[in-house]
Amino acid sequence: MDIPAQLLPQQIHACYPGVAIGNKYELGSGAKFSPSSPINGESLCQSGAATADEVAAAVAAAHEAFKAWRVVPAPVRGELVRRIGDEVRANKSELAKLITLEAGKIPAEAEGEIQEWIDVCDFAVGLSRQLYGLTIASERPEHQLIEQWHPLGPVGVISAFNFPCAVWAWNSMIGLVCGDPIIWKPSEQTPLISLACHEMVVRAAKTMDEAPAALSCVVQGKADAGEALAKSELVPLVSATGSVPMGREVAKTVAGRLGKCLLELSGNNAMIVTETADLELAVRAIVFAAVGTAGQRCTSLRRLIVHPDIVDGLCERLVKAYATLPIGDPSRPGTLVGPLVGKPSLERFLASIKTAQAQGGTLLCGGDQVTEGVPGGCYVHPALVRMPEQTEVMREETFAPLTYITTYDSIEHAIELQNGVAQGLSSAIFTSDVREAGRFLSPAGSDCGIANVNIGTSGAEIGGAFGGEKETGGGRESGSDSWKQYMRRSTNTINYGSALPLAQGIKFDV
Amino acid sequence: MDIPAQLLPQQIHACYPGVAIGNKYELGSGAKFSPSSPINGESLCQSGAATADEVAAAVAAAHEAFKAWRVVPAPVRGELVRRIGDEVRANKSELAKLITLEAGKIPAEAEGEIQEWIDVCDFAVGLSRQLYGLTIASERPEHQLIEQWHPLGPVGVISAFNFPCAVWAWNSMIGLVCGDPIIWKPSEQTPLISLACHEMVVRAAKTMDEAPAALSCVVQGKADAGEALAKSELVPLVSATGSVPMGREVAKTVAGRLGKCLLELSGNNAMIVTETADLELAVRAIVFAAVGTAGQRCTSLRRLIVHPDIVDGLCERLVKAYATLPIGDPSRPGTLVGPLVGKPSLERFLASIKTAQAQGGTLLCGGDQVTEGVPGGCYVHPALVRMPEQTEVMREETFAPLTYITTYDSIEHAIELQNGVAQGLSSAIFTSDVREAGRFLSPAGSDCGIANVNIGTSGAEIGGAFGGEKETGGGRESGSDSWKQYMRRSTNTINYGSALPLAQGIKFDV
Amino acid sequence: MDIPAQLLPQQIHACYPGVAIGNKYELGSGAKFSPSSPINGESLCQSGAATADEVAAAVAAAHEAFKAWRVVPAPVRGELVRRIGDEVRANKSELAKLITLEAGKIPAEAEGEIQEWIDVCDFAVGLSRQLYGLTIASERPEHQLIEQWHPLGPVGVISAFNFPCAVWAWNSMIGLVCGDPIIWKPSEQTPLISLACHEMVVRAAKTMDEAPAALSCVVQGKADAGEALAKSELVPLVSATGSVPMGREVAKTVAGRLGKCLLELSGNNAMIVTETADLELAVRAIVFAAVGTAGQRCTSLRRLIVHPDIVDGLCERLVKAYATLPIGDPSRPGTLVGPLVGKPSLERFLASIKTAQAQGGTLLCGGDQVTEGVPGGCYVHPALVRMPEQTEVMREETFAPLTYITTYDSIEHAIELQNGVAQGLSSAIFTSDVREAGRFLSPAGSDCGIANVNIGTSGAEIGGAFGGEKETGGGRESGSDSWKQYMRRSTNTINYGSALPLAQGIKFDV
Amino acid sequence: MDIPAQLLPQQIHACYPGVAIGNKYELGSGAKFSPSSPINGESLCQSGAATADEVAAAVAAAHEAFKAWRVVPAPVRGELVRRIGDEVRANKSELAKLITLEAGKIPAEAEGEIQEWIDVCDFAVGLSRQLYGLTIASERPEHQLIEQWHPLGPVGVISAFNFPCAVWAWNSMIGLVCGDPIIWKPSEQTPLISLACHEMVVRAAKTMDEAPAALSCVVQGKADAGEALAKSELVPLVSATGSVPMGREVAKTVAGRLGKCLLELSGNNAMIVTETADLELAVRAIVFAAVGTAGQRCTSLRRLIVHPDIVDGLCERLVKAYATLPIGDPSRPGTLVGPLVGKPSLERFLASIKTAQAQGGTLLCGGDQVTEGVPGGCYVHPALVRMPEQTEVMREETFAPLTYITTYDSIEHAIELQNGVAQGLSSAIFTSDVREAGRFLSPAGSDCGIANVNIGTSGAEIGGAFGGEKETGGGRESGSDSWKQYMRRSTNTINYGSALPLAQGIKFDV
Repeated sequence: MDIPAQLLPQQIHACYPGVAIGNKYELGSGAKFSPSSPINGESLCQSGAATADEVAAAVAAAHEAFKAWRVVPAPVRGELVRRIGDEVRANKSELAKLITLEAGKIPAEAEGEIQEWIDVCDFAVGLSRQLYGLTIASERPEHQLIEQWHPLGPVGVISAFNFPCAVWAWNSMIGLVCGDPIIWKPSEQTPLISLACHEMVVRAAKTMDEAPAALSCVVQGKADAGEALAKSELVPLVSATGSVPMGREVAKTVAGRLGKCLLELSGNNAMIVTETADLELAVRAIVFAAVGTAGQRCTSLRRLIVHPDIVDGLCERLVKAYATLPIGDPSRPGTLVGPLVGKPSLERFLASIKTAQAQGGTLLCGGDQVTEGVPGGCYVHPALVRMPEQTEVMREETFAPLTYITTYDSIEHAIELQNGVAQGLSSAIFTSDVREAGRFLSPAGSDCGIANVNIGTSGAEIGGAFGGEKETGGGRESGSDSWKQYMRRSTNTINYGSALPLAQGIKFDV
Repeated sequence: MDIPAQLLPQQIHACYPGVAIGNKYELGSGAKFSPSSPINGESLCQSGAATADEVAAAVAAAHEAFKAWRVVPAPVRGELVRRIGDEVRANKSELAKLITLEAGKIPAEAEGEIQEWIDVCDFAVGLSRQLYGLTIASERPEHQLIEQWHPLGPVGVISAFNFPCAVWAWNSMIGLVCGDPIIWKPSEQTPLISLACHEMVVRAAKTMDEAPAALSCVVQGKADAGEALAKSELVPLVSATGSVPMGREVAKTVAGRLGKCLLELSGNNAMIVTETADLELAVRAIVFAAVGTAGQRCTSLRRLIVHPDIVDGLCERLVKAYATLPIGDPSRPGTLVGPLVGKPSLERFLASIKTAQAQGGTLLCGGDQVTEGVPGGCYVHPALVRMPEQTEVMREETFAPLTYITTYDSIEHAIELQNGVAQGLSSAIFTSDVREAGRFLSPAGSDCGIANVNIGTSGAEIGGAFGGEKETGGGRESGSDSWKQYMRRSTNTINYGSALPLAQGIKFDV
Repeated sequence: MDIPAQLLPQQIHACYPGVAIGNKYELGSGAKFSPSSPINGESLCQSGAATADEVAAAVAAAHEAFKAWRVVPAPVRGELVRRIGDEVRANKSELAKLITLEAGKIPAEAEGEIQEWIDVCDFAVGLSRQLYGLTIASERPEHQLIEQWHPLGPVGVISAFNFPCAVWAWNSMIGLVCGDPIIWKPSEQTPLISLACHEMVVRAAKTMDEAPAALSCVVQGKADAGEALAKSELVPLVSATGSVPMGREVAKTVAGRLGKCLLELSGNNAMIVTETADLELAVRAIVFAAVGTAGQRCTSLRRLIVHPDIVDGLCERLVKAYATLPIGDPSRPGTLVGPLVGKPSLERFLASIKTAQAQGGTLLCGGDQVTEGVPGGCYVHPALVRMPEQTEVMREETFAPLTYITTYDSIEHAIELQNGVAQGLSSAIFTSDVREAGRFLSPAGSDCGIANVNIGTSGAEIGGAFGGEKETGGGRESGSDSWKQYMRRSTNTINYGSALPLAQGIKFDV
Repeated sequence: MDIPAQLLPQQIHACYPGVAIGNKYELGSGAKFSPSSPINGESLCQSGAATADEVAAAVAAAHEAFKAWRVVPAPVRGELVRRIGDEVRANKSELAKLITLEAGKIPAEAEGEIQEWIDVCDFAVGLSRQLYGLTIASERPEHQLIEQWHPLGPVGVISAFNFPCAVWAWNSMIGLVCGDPIIWKPSEQTPLISLACHEMVVRAAKTMDEAPAALSCVVQGKADAGEALAKSELVPLVSATGSVPMGREVAKTVAGRLGKCLLELSGNNAMIVTETADLELAVRAIVFAAVGTAGQRCTSLRRLIVHPDIVDGLCERLVKAYATLPIGDPSRPGTLVGPLVGKPSLERFLASIKTAQAQGGTLLCGGDQVTEGVPGGCYVHPALVRMPEQTEVMREETFAPLTYITTYDSIEHAIELQNGVAQGLSSAIFTSDVREAGRFLSPAGSDCGIANVNIGTSGAEIGGAFGGEKETGGGRESGSDSWKQYMRRSTNTINYGSALPLAQGIKFDV
């Protein structure tokens, strides 16, 4: 698989640029870094990193761009996003290739991720003629009370390797329509796809006079680049996706300057399978949710909470299905399970299985590294571990294709298990029963941001709000009214009369 | 003025209780404290303070209450709030008296504050049959995509002396309807009004079997009680009103545990007066906004940005109006300007005037302490200071009746001055001109959460969302969709078909 | 049972007034009429009827009231409705008595109807601080695009005997909050409850200076009074509840003058009972929906579409339950089935059963008049008729406790049967199955305005929009955004810049 | 100017088809008709007309298509509309040519009309992932209350010559996304543009398997084809644009079968010009609104209500501007005023001027036919008539470039004049004054569906709801929540508990 050079800016001294401010690319004066492709563990390219000063320069440029962009009418901003969408449609499979190379996804999933970008463009274009505030009944005669949503300012986006494009796309397509330039700190694992994504914006922006150059910026590098972004007073919103410790740091930094955060942190997603479930459907859903993206989605299925009457049968079916999974080079046609992103992931996978066994678990299948027939990299057999109860290890997220299975006593107990972890991203129930489904979706049901019935924990549509509660961080991205986070609300009262009545009927006559 | 004992719980060892968990009142094992009435500087009462353990006990009780309250149908929760509203209507003037005693407000403003509570009850009752989520068009056949809003959990409310009732009422009436118990840490200056407010809830709750005892809790005390609340993992939302340093601390504490904050911090509110303004209306608006509540509203007018052609005339009118202001004991009929809350406020008032003078300002009127004809306490003549430009002192908030006046060159310049401070709460323009008004309300206009035309900066209606940007903290309370902050969003996809299509058209066939 | 005189205006020449314009009551120069109480068939009172001229006078007065009321701030209008709600709470059981007397409802249902009024007051009060329009992103620089909802004008309400209070309450409480006076033509069967309802408004209005006298008007009489109302050019909206032929006439009359209609016409409501249904729950739901209000609700259950495997068992249970129904004087404690409204209803009931038998039906129980132990009036044993298929008679609405039972082949067939009638009001499915429930609620499911799962066809909450499709007339009342029908929408574009850009980028330079 | 044949279906027997059902074109067995081009009065082509039977066949095909289309997920329906938008972008100028040929618009306006189609595609695509219903707080435990919007059925569209594309596009792009096939009866004046518009849909539909053939249908002809459409029981919604008498007939016909109408009938649009208006801007706005599309927009400016102090100056400026208007062949570069659509229009124009003069009016300029330098057709000099007061002729709509000017005494008087006509479509005020603008937009202000400040009466953006009150018919198209009219609302209550509580707390225990 070759790097599709036509999507990328020119290398500078054999190095991919570490700083992009619109169509200006610079090397980046920070340390160079060379992520390996998960496919074979070999270095893909060399990239420059941005220093704190270079981050500041990008932010300053975005801040300037903001002043112009905020007064461009939103439907015109929408037209830019429509053109970006057309660029992406035209380059869909090439963009997907970069995801395969850098994140190790199979093409079906990589293209799905690009499709998500396309979808969110369509959605954002529609929003661009809405961005609805309210007109509100005022309690005072000859007064008008309205609420408007105005552009917020430059948005910092910190994203993770596992959705190297879609998370940025959710934030930036909606942010652009809302009037906000974007400064992106991608994962150090995925410098190329981030440059290519940015380049799509640059190309579309070139076709419109209204679009200032610095609407889109990229700052490559490790945690320090993200930290510089989080600290910047000129960045009113930081949208960060990644681990809980990272999120906690960003949250504290941004809180200290009274800025806003949009956090998408970890998930520890469970599925309840009741005795009335359609097991064939459940098996397919479980397999996709547990091993898709090699278990490296924030919404990957980590815990199965199963009715005792069906647990043995379900395990049997799953083990059978797991035995047929094509594992290996994701770019090879037919592969369903690609590599882990790197060695630390492999180690955590193996360690968690050991811990689970120590806590009484039985390994049903998988759990070992695959070394034959793979091009290097870290490949594993996805693991299923039957647990006697929900032990400590089940309450931690292991970012790999490792799924625990335990049983429940009653539907209330099942929900209690589901909710009994610190994370609150995604959840699902498989049941044919109206009451079980209803209870699962009720105020006393799943405490996650996403709760599904008869579909898996992963694979959300862009039309809903994506995100979760508790340690997942509370942010919401993509659909519904997520766009409001990228704007500031202005509550306006206009007195068009000749008197000055006070609210709450107060009299104050000088 | 006597304390209306019938609104208050019994004293315990001659001390007002420091901990209230529903109808259970306890002394509080923390240090006792005795706020003075701003009216005369004399101690009003002795109160107990809650220790961190007692805060934890209140939170635990609220957490238990939450489990029951969240499954009580919202319209039934609304019925509780309706009954609270009836209690408050029946005790309006007595409740107002407590505000006068503890916060020093004149009765018109104290009753206005109680009216705000009544208004928010009516609004919340209506909400209780709404709490609208969305049904959303799904991209998959035989799938339903919906979004529900569920109760969030116990809400911590930290409030300030200057709105000792309304801010809690905004949070708790809406919080209760949303399914959340409330744990309130009021200002240590206003223990009695907070107990009386709580008691209204207790009385209404007694009439309904569905209402658990601990729906409303109060923990009295100083910063440490608030800190204990902010730290509690069982409190998913902390709504805090007060100073920027306080807000910053709370924000960092809550961010560190990935909880949510709703901050209402400082304002440094300006009014632009253009050459087309109706000056008579402007003068009335300025006086109320600048000296109402003795300049101790977060929305009080602090800065006047005036067209040079009219500045002299406006100053003259204002000075004349200020000369007639009845200052003194707020409980005396006719008084419009009551006391500052205490000595530190007086000192900051005097110091700021000095600083302003040192930065080139001219004191137009007021600025000194009133010592004659007042019953003790800290009374001042409200001050107007003409400034040559927007200097440093103007960029700080002095919580007192001190208003700076400066001039502008162009409407763009006026908006730049208005926005040139760290705070972003309230703002106003007085103009007869459609274009000036339009620009002020536009994306390039005022950067505040509240932007008014031809009314002052203070005195918002409860129907709009109240709050501000930048250092004001970004929270919104009361009207519009502020209620969403008190709930958690659940995005649900339900597959009612027999197939399992994946989003974004992904194919993953095992 | 005595008529509660304290709720009613004074009689005029031994006759209840036929025209009420606010607190001005007049006899009515039309023919006198004397409805009989369904309880015993005896005349309750004599009433005057309004002539076309008197209707015109009421409309003219309402039109004048409109000019004042439309500029009263909506929250103040809401305060009126809040006070109406308090009046109604205070007189709930007495108001219910009038419903029992005139419509023959049992007290539980009569009080439920008054409770509905109370509920809609609470809801409308909340609306009064909302009535939300939108602020919308404009495509032109320095342009603001908003949408406001303004009061519409006097609303004509034509209501039926079976909900002699609630239907008017839905329309008028929301209409009043929206700024519209109401002119009510009640059923000639229920003159007293309508006067008492009106009187509650009058009493509340007296307490508020802002409320003009003629906000509420009543014009008693038969079809000609309704016709006069429908024709009036000063009545922009006519909300009519009743039969299809009546609705068709009103619709044509109002369409001819390009006014608006809100129609709530007939229902022919079905319930599908699948083999997974909880039969105990189903039986209870069926009995209430079929025989409540003696089958005289527009949402009464008329058709049961049952899975063949369970139909015999279900019939058996129903017949057993029907055998225990206490039938008779509705004011007697314990009665569940009161009288039909009059002789024509009885005759249609008997005739429909005959027709059904002629079309192959088997009468399972009931179907005859009850003459013993009843105080006169028309009482019947509720009937269940087993039908071999959905014949012609099942496609007609008989307004009586007559329910047909037939079976289905597949869930698709069941839905086809459910949809295979001209009416489209209410529908229900009893099932434990997620897929069946999902399909029933899907775009290819029930074509009714109301579609329930595991509850009966009748007994809607006020928070949802009430009404139906097809011959039911398409109107929606009560909750959700039904209020918009009582207002007019104003789309406003405001240019606050100095240029005049045209939409769609058109250039037109003179 | 040649007919762009590549956009059109093949002729049948030298005749353009009169019936199109998806990609099946048929001649039409009705009378042939040959509209003349307004440019030169010469026949453009011959077209077949559809008979009532052929209309019925189209409706039946659309009804079948509906059954399939309603269950295609809305975002997939949106994808069809996105592709239609791309087709239109690719053929924009050629489509515009057809509008010039058939309706006589200048290219700038013709392209603006096509742009409106493109804009509404973008908007509709966004809607396709929304179509938001509500989830609503239920009053009963373990009950879920939601509201869904489902596809409605085939929509009949009857459109007029003056917007031969945009009105259909508003209805059909949104209707398609909502799940409804469209049957279009275009004006008999514009058969070709309607065929070309339809063909764009056909081409896009061919690229998607999910799109049934008969999603788009066209039935050409005169009033009888429209009548057949209005009568059809299979068409739940008829959207009709045109004259009041036409609208009244359609409304009655559809009301008689209890269907729904969306009416866009006449306008008699006024602009108030106050003494504070920016006259230069006002003149430009007036000229475009009065003479654009040769005064043949439903939103064309017909009445000027001017402050007496400025009326002479304004008239002078207008007369001067009118003198420079390039009148003639619309396809000739530079032309701003093209032809009237035909002779009857010309006659009404001339007659109205005479009547106005008889009622005291003074013709300021124009008012006569232009016969030199034009290619045939009916061209006129746009007329301005100064009226002593608002006489009868001003209360009628003359569909031509004829604008009356009168004066007002007070702003209240100006609004009274503005509202003193039977129509209620569009209105505007030119003022610099916040109070005048506020009053004009208030509940006591303009009674039109559109009310603008400092822009003309015509040229709405697609983001707002378009339509008007009173005789204009009350319908709303295009933006905001207009889409709801193309769907049916389903209110669903789901009991997921084991009990059966009744609403309003009713007890009914068998």
